[in-house]
Amino acid sequence: MKIGFIGLGGMGAGIAANILRGGHEVVAWNRSPGPLAALVAQGAIAAPTAQETLETDIVFSMLANDGALQDVGLDGPLLAKASRGLVHVNMATVSIAFARTLQKTHKAFGIGYVAAPVFGRPDAAAAGKLTVIAAGAPADIARVEPILVMLGAKYACVGPDPVQANLFKITGNFMIAAAIESMGEAAALLRKGGVDPVLFFDVMTNANFSAPVYKIYGKIIADQAYDKAGFKLSLGYKDAGLTLAAAKELEAPMPLASMVHDHFIEAMAVGWSEKDWAALARLAAERAGLKD
Amino acid sequence: MKIGFIGLGGMGAGIAANILRGGHEVVAWNRSPGPLAALVAQGAIAAPTAQETLETDIVFSMLANDGALQDVGLDGPLLAKASRGLVHVNMATVSIAFARTLQKTHKAFGIGYVAAPVFGRPDAAAAGKLTVIAAGAPADIARVEPILVMLGAKYACVGPDPVQANLFKITGNFMIAAAIESMGEAAALLRKGGVDPVLFFDVMTNANFSAPVYKIYGKIIADQAYDKAGFKLSLGYKDAGLTLAAAKELEAPMPLASMVHDHFIEAMAVGWSEKDWAALARLAAERAGLKD
Amino acid sequence: MKIGFIGLGGMGAGIAANILRGGHEVVAWNRSPGPLAALVAQGAIAAPTAQETLETDIVFSMLANDGALQDVGLDGPLLAKASRGLVHVNMATVSIAFARTLQKTHKAFGIGYVAAPVFGRPDAAAAGKLTVIAAGAPADIARVEPILVMLGAKYACVGPDPVQANLFKITGNFMIAAAIESMGEAAALLRKGGVDPVLFFDVMTNANFSAPVYKIYGKIIADQAYDKAGFKLSLGYKDAGLTLAAAKELEAPMPLASMVHDHFIEAMAVGWSEKDWAALARLAAERAGLKD
Amino acid sequence: MKIGFIGLGGMGAGIAANILRGGHEVVAWNRSPGPLAALVAQGAIAAPTAQETLETDIVFSMLANDGALQDVGLDGPLLAKASRGLVHVNMATVSIAFARTLQKTHKAFGIGYVAAPVFGRPDAAAAGKLTVIAAGAPADIARVEPILVMLGAKYACVGPDPVQANLFKITGNFMIAAAIESMGEAAALLRKGGVDPVLFFDVMTNANFSAPVYKIYGKIIADQAYDKAGFKLSLGYKDAGLTLAAAKELEAPMPLASMVHDHFIEAMAVGWSEKDWAALARLAAERAGLKD
Repeated sequence: MKIGFIGLGGMGAGIAANILRGGHEVVAWNRSPGPLAALVAQGAIAAPTAQETLETDIVFSMLANDGALQDVGLDGPLLAKASRGLVHVNMATVSIAFARTLQKTHKAFGIGYVAAPVFGRPDAAAAGKLTVIAAGAPADIARVEPILVMLGAKYACVGPDPVQANLFKITGNFMIAAAIESMGEAAALLRKGGVDPVLFFDVMTNANFSAPVYKIYGKIIADQAYDKAGFKLSLGYKDAGLTLAAAKELEAPMPLASMVHDHFIEAMAVGWSEKDWAALARLAAERAGLKD
Repeated sequence: MKIGFIGLGGMGAGIAANILRGGHEVVAWNRSPGPLAALVAQGAIAAPTAQETLETDIVFSMLANDGALQDVGLDGPLLAKASRGLVHVNMATVSIAFARTLQKTHKAFGIGYVAAPVFGRPDAAAAGKLTVIAAGAPADIARVEPILVMLGAKYACVGPDPVQANLFKITGNFMIAAAIESMGEAAALLRKGGVDPVLFFDVMTNANFSAPVYKIYGKIIADQAYDKAGFKLSLGYKDAGLTLAAAKELEAPMPLASMVHDHFIEAMAVGWSEKDWAALARLAAERAGLKD
Repeated sequence: MKIGFIGLGGMGAGIAANILRGGHEVVAWNRSPGPLAALVAQGAIAAPTAQETLETDIVFSMLANDGALQDVGLDGPLLAKASRGLVHVNMATVSIAFARTLQKTHKAFGIGYVAAPVFGRPDAAAAGKLTVIAAGAPADIARVEPILVMLGAKYACVGPDPVQANLFKITGNFMIAAAIESMGEAAALLRKGGVDPVLFFDVMTNANFSAPVYKIYGKIIADQAYDKAGFKLSLGYKDAGLTLAAAKELEAPMPLASMVHDHFIEAMAVGWSEKDWAALARLAAERAGLKD
Repeated sequence: MKIGFIGLGGMGAGIAANILRGGHEVVAWNRSPGPLAALVAQGAIAAPTAQETLETDIVFSMLANDGALQDVGLDGPLLAKASRGLVHVNMATVSIAFARTLQKTHKAFGIGYVAAPVFGRPDAAAAGKLTVIAAGAPADIARVEPILVMLGAKYACVGPDPVQANLFKITGNFMIAAAIESMGEAAALLRKGGVDPVLFFDVMTNANFSAPVYKIYGKIIADQAYDKAGFKLSLGYKDAGLTLAAAKELEAPMPLASMVHDHFIEAMAVGWSEKDWAALARLAAERAGLKD
C-alpha cells in the first residue's frame, strides 16, 4: 500500500521505518529535514509538503500534542483537500476534548479516522515492539489493522469510538506516572533507612513487580540517571494534564493523578523540563533531605 | 534439623508444611487448635506450649503484627528460657521500632535473630513460591538460609541488620498498595468514559505492566470482587500504618503513602475491614459516583 | 453618571441597586426579564439589548464565568460598536487566560477595562458591604473608583494590570475553599470523638478564628445545613478550577488546591452541584463513616 | 489559694506570673533554674523538687509533650505521694492516647484531673489573653475555673471528659496549620503572578479573614520572616502528629492533615525544626521555584 507519514520524531522515525520494512511505499513529511533525509535513505519518498502525504491509502501522523496537529493542519485544512477514502491514523496522545473535535472534522470531510496511540519508548518503536491501542469505526480499523499489528508486540482494538483509544492511552500513562511516583517515594525511604534501592528494585522486579515499567524506571531511579531523557519530563507533565482534564470532564476524581501533576509542576518550576520524567523520584529524595 | 514453628494462619500453615516436606522435623504451636491438628496430620509434632518450639535448632514465627509477637512472648519471656544457639526467624511484617526492640532483646538473651518477611499470598506460601527477604548477622543467616531458600521462588539477603528486611518489606507493601490505588483510579476513570477495565488490564498486563501485582489486582478490580479477601483490608491498613511510621522515623515524606493510608482509614470507617484490600478501588469508584 | 449594567443575578441585582441608590442613572440588561423588571421598579432603565448598556459612561458586568461573557458578546462583538471613552468594569471571577484575552480585546477597540471582582455573598452585595478588588490602568481606575468604593465595605486597587485583580480574587476564593475543607475535616474528627462542632466553632470564632469566613461556614457545617446554597457548589468547583489553571500557568504547585478540587469533582459526581459549597464538609463526614 | 506550677517555658512563665498577679501563692518548679529565679523575683516560692508543687490546692503543669510529663513523673510517681483533694490541671497538648492514660492514673490515685490546653503564643500567655479550653469532672472544674478564667481572654469548658479538651485543642491546632498551608500556597501563587502578598493579606485580613490567625501568619509569610520562631516548627510537627493519631484512632480520615504532616516531615528533613512553623509557606514557595 501507499502510506503517508507525518512526524518523524524519536517515535515516528522508528514506526515509519518499520512500515517501510513491511514492504509498503512510504511518503513522508517532517517539519525539520534531518529525520526526513534519514528515512529517505531507507527508501521513503520525501513529500514536498504535508499535503502530499494525504494522497495515499492511509496517512499516519505521530505528532507531539493537540497543538502540533493543529499547526500541521490535520484538524481541517489538510483534510479539506484529501481524497475521500483516505484513512487517517492519529498516533498522538491527544486530549479527550481534541479527540472529539478530530472525530467530527474527519467525518465532515469524509475521511476515515482511527486513533492509535502507543505505549513504548523510541527503542521499542524502532524494534516494532510497541503496544498499539486502536479505536475507530470497524471499516476503518479493518483497513489499517494489518499495518498496526506489524508495529507492535501487542495490538488491541478497544472500541468503535476513536476517543476510547485516547482515554485508554491517557489512563495507561497515568498508571506509569503513578508507578514512578511510588518508586520514587520507596527509594527515598530506603535510602534514608540504609537499604540500597538497586537491590530493592532488583528483587521486586524479579518477583511480583516483574514488569517492564518497574524494570526500566526502577533502574533509572536506583541509578539517579535522570539527565538522559528517554521520555522528557515536560511530556510527562503534558500527559498528566490530559489525565486531569479527562478526570474533570468525566467527573472521576483522581487524587493520585492530581498529586503526580503537582509534582510535575514543581519539577517544571525548578527547571527540569528536559530531564527524564522519572525525575519525579528526585523530588521525593529532595523532600527527604537527600542532596543527590 | 529440628524446627520450631509458631503461628499457623493462612501464611504460616503453608510455610510450615513446606518445611515438613523438606524433610525436617517440625514442632509447631498455634493459638487455635484446628490448624495445628491439620499440620500434625501432615507429620508435625504438636508443642504443648509455645515454649517447646524454642527447644529446637531454629524457630520460625509467622504472626500477625507487633502485638501478636508480644502476646506469645517472643519479645522476651519465651527467649529467656530458650537455649543459647537457637536462631529465631521472624517472618512477620513488624514496625521498624519493634524490629529494633526485638533485635536488642534477642541479643541480650544470646539468641540469634533473623528477620525474614515474605511477599506473597497464602497460595504462594503453600506452593513454596514466596519471595523471601532476609536480613541478619551472617552467621545466623548461614544457619537458616537453606530453609528460607526452600520456601520461595525468590530469596534475597538484604543486609546484616534485621531491621533492613522489615524496611524492605514495608516498602514493598507500600508499592503494592500504591499500585492498587492507581488501578482503582484508572478503572473509575475508564468506567466513566465507557471503556471496559477488563480489556484495559488485559492489555496492560500483557505489555509494560506484565507483573503479578497488576495481573492479580487488575482482575479483582475489573471484576469488583472484593468480598472474598485474599489479603484483608485491615491488614493492608496495618501495613500502610507501618509505612507511615517508617517514613516519620526516617524523615522521608511519602505523600502517596499518606493518601493510601487515608483511603484505608475511610474503608475501615465504612466497615470494609474484612474485604480484600483491593477495595481501595471501590472507594475510587464511589468517589466518581459509581454505585457498584 | 450614566451607568450600564449587564447581569442581574443574585450578586448583580444588589450591586446595581446600590449604584441606583448612589444617584446614578442605570441602564440595565439581563437575559431573563424578572430581575430586570425588579430593578426597573427601583428606577433603572431597561435596555432593549445588551448593546445599549454600552452607550453610557461606564458599563458594569456581573456574569457567571468566561462563557457567559462570551455569550453576551463582551469579548468583542459588543465592544466593536461601543463608543470610545467607555470604561468596562468586569466584576466576574474569570480565568487568568480569559482575563488576558479581555484585556487585549478592549485595548484593540479603544475601550477602557477594569477588572473588579468582589468577595461577599448576595446579602453583602445588597447591603453594599462587599470587598471590592480592582486593577486596571490608572486613568480607568480613576473614572470608576467612586462607584466601586460605594459598593463595598472594603475597596482596594491591587495594580495596573487587570489580570492582577483576577489572580487576587482566585487566590482569595482558594483560601475560603481551603478553610471550608479544614473545618470539614475538623468537624468530622470532633464528631467521631464526641465533641460538639457547634461548641468548637463557637469558641474558635470568638478567639483566633474570629473572621466572617469561619463564622459563616463554621455555622453551616456545624448545622449540616447544605441544602440552601448561599454559594452553589458548582460555582465553588468552577473557582477551584480557576485556581488550578492559574497554578498551572504560573507554575506554582498547590497541593491543597488540588485536593479541594478533587473533592469538588466528587461532590459534582454524586450530584451535589446545587448544594452550598460548604458541603465539602459533608464529604469529610462521609469519609469518616458518618451518615448525616 | 496555694497553687503549684510545673514548667516555666515560654508559655508557662507567663501563665504562672498571671496566677501570681491574681493574688495566689505560687509554688513553682522548673527543670532549668533561670526561669524559676525570674518567677521567684516576682514573688513565687521555689520548690526544691517537683513533688512539693503537689503539696498545694491545685497544681498546674505546662510541659512540652507526653514525654515531658512522664519525665517529671506526672503520669504516676508524683501523684502517688500527693494529697487526696489535689486537682491537677494539665495544660499540655498531649495525645489522645496519653490523655486517656493520665485520666485513669489520676483516678487511681484519687487526684482530681482537668485538661486545660490553651491557644495562644507566649505574648498572649503573658498578657492573660489566651483561649483556655477545659474539660473534666464538674467538681474538679468548679475548683479550678476561677483561675482558668483569669488566664485567658476566652474560656470554655467543653465537657466532663478531660480527653475532650485535648481533642478540641488538637483539632484547633490542625485548623491553624491548615490555614498556614493555605496562606503559603496562596502567597507562592501570587508571587509567581506578580501580586504582592503583603497587599493580599492586608486586604483579606481586613475583610472576611479578619482573624488573628490570618493576621499573625499572613504577616510572617508575607515578610518571609521564619527565623525568629514564635512557635517552633518541631512543635507544629508534633501537633500534626497528634492530629493524625487522633484521626487514626477515631477513624476519621483527614487528607489535609496528612498533607500538612508530610510537609512538616519535609521541613524537619531539610533542617528547619527551629524555624517558625509558618515556614511551611517557604516550602510552598520553593516548590514553585522561588528561591527566597
